[in-house]
Amino acid sequence: MTSPHQPPPPSALPAHLDAGLLSPVRAGTDTEAATGDAAWLQAMLDAEAALARAQARCGTVPADAAAIITDAARADLFDLRELALAARQTANPVVALVSALTAQVAQRSPQAAEYVHRGSTSQDVFDTGAMLVATRALRLILTDLHTTADALGRLAAGHRDTVMAARTLALHAVPTTFGLKAAGWRQLVLDAAARLQPLADGRLPVALGGAAGTLAGYLQYAGDHTDPAAYLHDLTTAYAEETNLAVPVLPWHALRTPLADLAAALAHTTAALGKIAADVLVLTRTEIGEVSEPQRAGRGASSAMPHKRNPVLATLIRSAAAQVPALAAVVTQCMSTEDERSAGLWHAEWQPLREALRLTGGAAHTAAELAQGLRVHPEAMRANLDATAGQLVSERVSAHLAPRLGKSAAKDLLTQASQQAAHTGRPLADVLAEHPRLTGILTHDQATALLDPHTYTGAAGPLTDHALTTTQPAPTP
Amino acid sequence: MTSPHQPPPPSALPAHLDAGLLSPVRAGTDTEAATGDAAWLQAMLDAEAALARAQARCGTVPADAAAIITDAARADLFDLRELALAARQTANPVVALVSALTAQVAQRSPQAAEYVHRGSTSQDVFDTGAMLVATRALRLILTDLHTTADALGRLAAGHRDTVMAARTLALHAVPTTFGLKAAGWRQLVLDAAARLQPLADGRLPVALGGAAGTLAGYLQYAGDHTDPAAYLHDLTTAYAEETNLAVPVLPWHALRTPLADLAAALAHTTAALGKIAADVLVLTRTEIGEVSEPQRAGRGASSAMPHKRNPVLATLIRSAAAQVPALAAVVTQCMSTEDERSAGLWHAEWQPLREALRLTGGAAHTAAELAQGLRVHPEAMRANLDATAGQLVSERVSAHLAPRLGKSAAKDLLTQASQQAAHTGRPLADVLAEHPRLTGILTHDQATALLDPHTYTGAAGPLTDHALTTTQPAPTP
Amino acid sequence: MTSPHQPPPPSALPAHLDAGLLSPVRAGTDTEAATGDAAWLQAMLDAEAALARAQARCGTVPADAAAIITDAARADLFDLRELALAARQTANPVVALVSALTAQVAQRSPQAAEYVHRGSTSQDVFDTGAMLVATRALRLILTDLHTTADALGRLAAGHRDTVMAARTLALHAVPTTFGLKAAGWRQLVLDAAARLQPLADGRLPVALGGAAGTLAGYLQYAGDHTDPAAYLHDLTTAYAEETNLAVPVLPWHALRTPLADLAAALAHTTAALGKIAADVLVLTRTEIGEVSEPQRAGRGASSAMPHKRNPVLATLIRSAAAQVPALAAVVTQCMSTEDERSAGLWHAEWQPLREALRLTGGAAHTAAELAQGLRVHPEAMRANLDATAGQLVSERVSAHLAPRLGKSAAKDLLTQASQQAAHTGRPLADVLAEHPRLTGILTHDQATALLDPHTYTGAAGPLTDHALTTTQPAPTP
Amino acid sequence: MTSPHQPPPPSALPAHLDAGLLSPVRAGTDTEAATGDAAWLQAMLDAEAALARAQARCGTVPADAAAIITDAARADLFDLRELALAARQTANPVVALVSALTAQVAQRSPQAAEYVHRGSTSQDVFDTGAMLVATRALRLILTDLHTTADALGRLAAGHRDTVMAARTLALHAVPTTFGLKAAGWRQLVLDAAARLQPLADGRLPVALGGAAGTLAGYLQYAGDHTDPAAYLHDLTTAYAEETNLAVPVLPWHALRTPLADLAAALAHTTAALGKIAADVLVLTRTEIGEVSEPQRAGRGASSAMPHKRNPVLATLIRSAAAQVPALAAVVTQCMSTEDERSAGLWHAEWQPLREALRLTGGAAHTAAELAQGLRVHPEAMRANLDATAGQLVSERVSAHLAPRLGKSAAKDLLTQASQQAAHTGRPLADVLAEHPRLTGILTHDQATALLDPHTYTGAAGPLTDHALTTTQPAPTP
Repeated sequence: MTSPHQPPPPSALPAHLDAGLLSPVRAGTDTEAATGDAAWLQAMLDAEAALARAQARCGTVPADAAAIITDAARADLFDLRELALAARQTANPVVALVSALTAQVAQRSPQAAEYVHRGSTSQDVFDTGAMLVATRALRLILTDLHTTADALGRLAAGHRDTVMAARTLALHAVPTTFGLKAAGWRQLVLDAAARLQPLADGRLPVALGGAAGTLAGYLQYAGDHTDPAAYLHDLTTAYAEETNLAVPVLPWHALRTPLADLAAALAHTTAALGKIAADVLVLTRTEIGEVSEPQRAGRGASSAMPHKRNPVLATLIRSAAAQVPALAAVVTQCMSTEDERSAGLWHAEWQPLREALRLTGGAAHTAAELAQGLRVHPEAMRANLDATAGQLVSERVSAHLAPRLGKSAAKDLLTQASQQAAHTGRPLADVLAEHPRLTGILTHDQATALLDPHTYTGAAGPLTDHALTTTQPAPTP
Repeated sequence: MTSPHQPPPPSALPAHLDAGLLSPVRAGTDTEAATGDAAWLQAMLDAEAALARAQARCGTVPADAAAIITDAARADLFDLRELALAARQTANPVVALVSALTAQVAQRSPQAAEYVHRGSTSQDVFDTGAMLVATRALRLILTDLHTTADALGRLAAGHRDTVMAARTLALHAVPTTFGLKAAGWRQLVLDAAARLQPLADGRLPVALGGAAGTLAGYLQYAGDHTDPAAYLHDLTTAYAEETNLAVPVLPWHALRTPLADLAAALAHTTAALGKIAADVLVLTRTEIGEVSEPQRAGRGASSAMPHKRNPVLATLIRSAAAQVPALAAVVTQCMSTEDERSAGLWHAEWQPLREALRLTGGAAHTAAELAQGLRVHPEAMRANLDATAGQLVSERVSAHLAPRLGKSAAKDLLTQASQQAAHTGRPLADVLAEHPRLTGILTHDQATALLDPHTYTGAAGPLTDHALTTTQPAPTP
Repeated sequence: MTSPHQPPPPSALPAHLDAGLLSPVRAGTDTEAATGDAAWLQAMLDAEAALARAQARCGTVPADAAAIITDAARADLFDLRELALAARQTANPVVALVSALTAQVAQRSPQAAEYVHRGSTSQDVFDTGAMLVATRALRLILTDLHTTADALGRLAAGHRDTVMAARTLALHAVPTTFGLKAAGWRQLVLDAAARLQPLADGRLPVALGGAAGTLAGYLQYAGDHTDPAAYLHDLTTAYAEETNLAVPVLPWHALRTPLADLAAALAHTTAALGKIAADVLVLTRTEIGEVSEPQRAGRGASSAMPHKRNPVLATLIRSAAAQVPALAAVVTQCMSTEDERSAGLWHAEWQPLREALRLTGGAAHTAAELAQGLRVHPEAMRANLDATAGQLVSERVSAHLAPRLGKSAAKDLLTQASQQAAHTGRPLADVLAEHPRLTGILTHDQATALLDPHTYTGAAGPLTDHALTTTQPAPTP
Repeated sequence: MTSPHQPPPPSALPAHLDAGLLSPVRAGTDTEAATGDAAWLQAMLDAEAALARAQARCGTVPADAAAIITDAARADLFDLRELALAARQTANPVVALVSALTAQVAQRSPQAAEYVHRGSTSQDVFDTGAMLVATRALRLILTDLHTTADALGRLAAGHRDTVMAARTLALHAVPTTFGLKAAGWRQLVLDAAARLQPLADGRLPVALGGAAGTLAGYLQYAGDHTDPAAYLHDLTTAYAEETNLAVPVLPWHALRTPLADLAAALAHTTAALGKIAADVLVLTRTEIGEVSEPQRAGRGASSAMPHKRNPVLATLIRSAAAQVPALAAVVTQCMSTEDERSAGLWHAEWQPLREALRLTGGAAHTAAELAQGLRVHPEAMRANLDATAGQLVSERVSAHLAPRLGKSAAKDLLTQASQQAAHTGRPLADVLAEHPRLTGILTHDQATALLDPHTYTGAAGPLTDHALTTTQPAPTP
C-alpha cells in the first residue's frame, strides 16, 4: 500500500496510538505531556522506586537494592504498548510492569530483583502513581489559572469604568461595566484555584495497604518480630516523604475520598472557565462585537470562509467544559463500590480521571492565552448601550417614580412606555416626557438624565475595587 | 367515578402533587420536610423579609414596614400551586410571589407594601432562599452523618479483632478485620462531613445584586446622595446578618461557586454512603451472611416470599447514591453559562439541587439507622475464612518462602499449589507439606501455622486504633 | 403561628408535598398530571386489576373477584402519603399497596380479597404501572411534538425565501434562510417523535415474572395440572391485552431494555428541543432581534426591569434540556445490575424516569407554544445581513476567483481584503474593486453583485422544499 | 538521561502519545485500531477523496483530479501529531489537513490540487469521517455481540434444566435455572444489537452542507447555470454512494440526530453487557462459586496473592459499563446547541464519541471471550440451593396453604416458620410439620415435596425455549 510517489514519513503512527487529534484543547500543552501514558508509566515506576527506598529507610530492603531499583525505574526502558496489552490479562498494568521491572533490575543485580514490589500490591503502585500524576498536573493547571487571574485582574482594573450592557435572559437588562464582568471572571478562577490548591500542595495521599489494606505483606517481609503499629507508621511516613505525598488516615484502596476530591475540583474548574468562554462567545458575536480574541496568523481561520476569525480559544474551552463534569461524575460514582478492592469501579476511574486532568489543563492553558490577549472594544459597548435608546435604564425611572406614583403604578407605566418606545422606535425619554400621567412629575431633561446608561452603573466600580483587593477566601470551602 | 362503597378519603391528592411515592429513601425524613416546596417558599419569604429588615437597618425602609413585611412572610398564607403555575409566565416563581406578598402586606398596610422587594430582583430572593434551604438541610444531614460515624466507631472498636476475609475483585484475598472495615466506613463518613461542614456553618452566601449584579436598584431607592461603596457594604452585611448567611466577594448571579460547592459535597456524601451500602449488600448475601440489617416488624418484607428479610436500608442508600452524582453534574455544568443571568441554566439548577439535598438527607438518615442497628455475625466470618482451607493466606507463605526460593519461584510454587488445593479440595497445608520442593523447608506444622488466617491480619488492629483516635483532618480539602 | 389578619388558605400544603414550584417548565401541563404520584398510584392499581382480570380469563381467578378488585382499584381510595411512608420499610410502595388494596377489596368481598396480587410480586405491579404511566405520558408528548412540527413547517414554508445570516462559531458565516432554519428544527422534532412513537404505540411491555422471573407463583396458584408453557403464554397474553401493553420475550425484572429505550428517546427529545431553544435565545438577543417569543400579558415580565419581555419559553425548554440527558444516563446505568432483582438500581430508576418524562412533556408543551406563536422579523434579518457590508459572502468571491487566481491565492486575497474591510469599515466590494491584483478580473459591479447576500443562499430553498415534503424516515433508527 | 546498561527500546513513546495503558478493556482489540487517531485521519481523508469523486461524477471536478486526490488520501503520508497541534489554531483538525492534503496532491499534480476540498467546509469532512469510523467500529462490535449471543445461547440450551437460586435484593428468592439466566443475558445482547444494527447498515448519513448548510460553495463552484435542486440531489447521492453512507434529509451540521442515535445505542450496549458482568461477579464470589471465568495461563493473576484467579473479563466489562452512559450523555447534550455550527459543543462530541465506541468495542470483545469460555458449576448451584434448607421455596408452601388458611394467614405462618427455621437452623419442612396450625393440613412428606427447589422452577424451561427460538423483534424499537 506504499505509494510510488514518496515513502511514508517517520511520524506515521501505528493504528492504536492517539496523538491528540480529537482533543485540540489540550494538544501540545504541558498538562497533556504530564498526563500521557508515558507520564503515567513513569509515575508508577516512581512509586515502585520510592517504595523500595522507603523500605530501605526502614531497614527491610538493602539500600543498594533500592538504588538499583530506582535506577531501573525509567519509563524509556519499557514498552508501553506491551504493558497495555498485557493489562488485559490482569485488568491492570501493574502486574506486567512488576515483571518487566524485575527483569530490568535483574539485569543489573539478581539480588536486587528480589526486592522489587516487595510485600506490595498493584493498587498501591497504581494509585500512588495516579496521585503523582495528578499532583504534577495540578501544579501546571494552577500556574495557568494564576496567569489567567492576573490577566483578568488587569482587564478589570483597566476597564473599571467601561460601561456596557448587562444582559439577563439574553436581553439587555441594566448597565454594568466590563471591569465588573472581568472581576467576576477572575473571582471564579480564584475560587477554582482555591479548591485545587490544597490538592496540589502535597495533600494527595500515598497508597499503601498491601493486598487488602492491612499491610500484612509488608509486615510479613519485615519479619515476625516487627511491631505492626510502629512499622506501619514508619513505612507509611517514609513512603510519603519519598513521594512528597501525604500520609492518609487509612489505606484507601476502597475509600476513594482523594478521587472524589479531584473529580470535584476539576469539574468545578472547567465549569468556571466555561463561564468565561460562554461570555466571550456572546460578546464576540458579529452583531455585538464588544470583545475579540487575541489575533495571530492563521488563528481562527475557516476552511471555507475567508473573512472568518473564529473565537477558537473560547470554543476550545467550552469543549472541555462540556465534558469534564460528566467525567467527574463517573469518578465520583466509582466511590460506591464493594469490597476491599472493586471489580471494575477502580478500573473505571483511570481514563476519566486522566481525561479530566488533561481537559482541565488544556482549558486552563487556553484561558490564560485568552485572558492575556483579549481585546476589548469600548466603542462597541457604547453603541450597544445606546441601541435601545434608554430602555435598559427603565428600572431606574421606575424606582424614581415609585415614591410619587406608587411602586406598582410606576412599574406598570414604565412597562407600557417601554413597549411603546420599542414599537415606535422612539427614545424612551420622549415617550415619557409626553406621558400625561407624568406631567409635572418628570421633565424631558430629567428623563434624559435618568436614562443615561453611563450614570446607572450602581456599585459596579466599588465592587470591582473590592474584588481586586480582597484577600478573603471564597465564601465556601 | 365515586364508588358506592365509600367516599374518597380526605387525603386523596390532586394529580399534580408529589408525596414521595417514588423516593422512599427520603420519604418522611426531616430533610424531605426541609426541602419541600413549602420549605422553599418559606425560605424565599424569609429572604424578602430579611431584605426589608436589612434595608430598614440601613435607613432606606421604615422599620415598621419591615416588621409588617416580616409578619406577612409566612408560607401558609400563600397558594403554592398558584405560584407554581404563575412561574411559567416568567420562568421563575418570584415574580408572582412578589405580587402575592405585596398584596398580603397591603392588607396590613398599603404604605408598607411599597417597600416589598424594593430595588431587588428575582434572583436575589430565589438564590438567598436556596442557600437558606441548603443550610437547613445540611445541618440535618450532618447530624445524621455524625450519628452514623459514632455508631460505626462503636462497631469498629467492638470488632477490632474480629477476623474476616478481605475480598478483592469479588474473591477472598487475605484476612482483615471487621473493625478495620467499619473504621474505613467511618472515615468515609467523616471525610464527607468535613466537606459539608463549612457549607452548613453559615458560609453559603446571601445573594444581593439587583437586576444585574450592580445593586443599582437598591442604590437608586437609597437616594442620590448615597455612597455606593458604603451602602453596598452596609446593606450586604445587614442582609447577611439577618439571614445568617455569608457575605460574598461579589454578587454571584452568574458566578455559581456556591452551587458547585454544594453539588460536589452532596455527590461526595452519597457516593461515600453508597460504599457502605455496597459492602453491606455483599456481606448480607445468603451465602455470606456476615452481617444483617436491623430487624423491625414488617421491615424487609417481600410481597411474594415469606422467608425474605430484604436489606432495605442498604438498598435505599444505594438508590440515592446512583442518582446524586449525575444530579450534581447537572448543577456543576450550569456554571458554564452566559451573561449576567442565564436563560435556562439558572433554572436548570433548582430541581437537581433540591433532589440532591433530599436524596443525600434520605441516605444519611437511612445510614444512621443502618449503622446503629447493624448486626455482625463473627461466626459466619469465621466459617467463610475457613471455607478455602488456607488459600486466602497464600500470600504469607509466598513471602515466607521468597528468601529461600527466590520471590518468583516462591510465588509460582504457591500459585500451583493453590490451584491443586482448589481442584482437589484438599487443605493447602497438606499440599504444601507434600511438595517435593519444600522438603526440609516447610513442615506441615509450619504450613498450618502460616496459613492460620487469624494470625495474618497485618496492621488491621493498629490501623483501626489509629483511625478511631486520629483527629487529623482528611488528607484532602 | 396563625396570623390575626387572616386564616391560612385551604391550599396551604403540608411540608412534604411538591406542587411543581421548582419546575415551571412542566407546572400545569398535562404530562405533569399524567406522571404525578396519583397517576403512578392509579397505574399500579390498574396493573393489579388487569392482572386479576387476566387470571380470570385464564380461569384461575373467579370473574366476579376480578370485577370487585377492579372496582376497588381507584387511587382516590388510598392514602398516597401513607403508602410513601410505608415504602421505606420494604424499599418499594407495592407491599403496602397490596395490603391496602386487599383491605379495600375485603370491605366489598372477603372472598375476592383472596385473589388480590395472587402469585405476583412487587416488581410485576410497579413495572407494569411504570409502563402504563410512560405510555400515557408519551402520547401527550407526541401530540405536542406534532403540534410543534406542524407550526414549524408553516414557519418554514412561509419564510422559504427570507434570507438571514447563518452563524457558525458565533460569527456570521454565509447567508441562509429562516425557512431552512425552521425546516431543520422541524426535522429534529420529527426525528425525536420517530424515536418516541413506537414506545407510545403499545410496544412497552407488561411485566410478568413473579417472585424471580419464572412465574412459579402464578403457576402454583394455577394448580399442579397446569401446563407451564401454555399458561405462561395465555396469562401473559391476557395481561398484555388487559393493559394494552406488549408481550415481552422474557420477564424483564433484571433485563431493562424498556427503560434504556425510554431513557434514550426522552434524552434525545429534550436535547433536540434544546437546540430550538438555543437558536431562539440567540436570535432574540437585543442586538440581533430576528425573532421574538409570542407575547401575552404578564408573560416574560421581570420583577425588576419594566422594559423586559424575557424569552421565557425558550428559557424553560433549555432548563429541561439541561437536565434530562443526565437523568437518562442514570436510568441507563441501572441496567448494569446484579441478580434477578437489583438491590438499589431498580429503585434508582423511578424518580429519574418520572422526572425525564415530565420534563420532556413540559419541554414539548412549551415548544408547541413557542413554535405556534414565534414572531419572525425579516427586516432585522436584512439589517443584520447588511451589517458587515458583504463580508459574509466572502466565500463566494473566493470561489469565483479560484479558477482565475488559484484556490489558495484567491482565499488569501479574500482573507486580507476582508480584514482590511473590517478594520476600515469600508464595504468589501470597494476594497476588492481597488485591489491591484484584481484589475481586469473583478469590477466593482461584479463584486457588488457577487457580494449580495440575497443571491447566495445556495440550495436553501430546495432543501426547505425537500424537508417539508419528504416522508422518508430519518436516516437513523 | 540514557542508561549505561542499555539503550531505550525503539518502542519508547513520546510523552504525548497514548497506547491504551489506562484502558485495558479495549487495548489490542480491533475496535481500538478502528477508532484510533490514525483511523480517524484515514476516514477524514476518505471523505475528502469521496467528495472529489462525487464531484467528478457530477462533472464539476475532472476525473483525473479526483483520482489523484484519492491516491494522496492515505493517512501514512501525514504527520498526525502536526495535525493535532495545528488544530488548536482553528479548533478542528480539518483546516490543517486540507493544507497538507493539498500539498500532497500538488506534488502529484498542481492542477489537481485546485480541486481539493472544493466548495467544502471542515464539518462536512470531519462528520463524514466520524460516520465512517462509527460504521466500521459498529460492524466490529456487532460481530462480537453475535458471537456473544451465540455462546450464551449454547449455555442457555445446555443448562435449560440446571437449577440454581434466583436472587433478589441480594438474597435467595426462589429457584430458577441457569438456562433462563443465560437466555436473559442473550436477550439483552440481542436487544442491544438490534439497536446498533441499523446504524451499522449504512444508515448513518454523509455530511454535506458547505459553510453553513446551504451547499452554496459547492453550487458556486458548479457554476451559475447549475440547478440547485438537481445538483443538491446529484451531489449528495454521489457522495453517499462513494462513502456507503446514507443520504440525510437535510445537512445536519447543527441537527445532531445521528450523534444522539449513536450515543444512545452505545450506552445501551455497554450497560447491557454490564449486567452480564455484574451477574458473573456475583456468581464468581468465593462463597458462591457457581461460575468461573475461562482460564488461561497468567489470566487473572494478582501481583500479591498467588491463589487468586481474578474474574478479569467481567471486571473489564464493568469498567466500560461504568463510563459509557456518561460519555453518551455528553454527546446527547451537545445536540442543544446554537447556530449553524456550534462554538464548542460540536468539538465536545469528538472524544466522548470515540471513547464510547472503543469502550463498547472493548466490552463486546471481552464479553465474547467471557461467554465462549464461561465455566458453569452445577454442583455449587445445587449446594447453594440446599444451604437454606427449603426457605427459598417458602412462597410455594404459602401458595399451597392459601386456599386452606387464607392468603394472609398462610403468608404470616410461613413468615414465622421461616424465621424460626433460620434462627434454629432446622429445615423448614421440620418446622412446618410440627406446626399445630398445620396438623391434618400438611404432612412432613408433603412439606418436603413442596420445598424441593428442583420442582419449583415455574416456567423457567419454557421461557428458555421461547427465548432461544423466538425471532420476534425486541418489544421496543
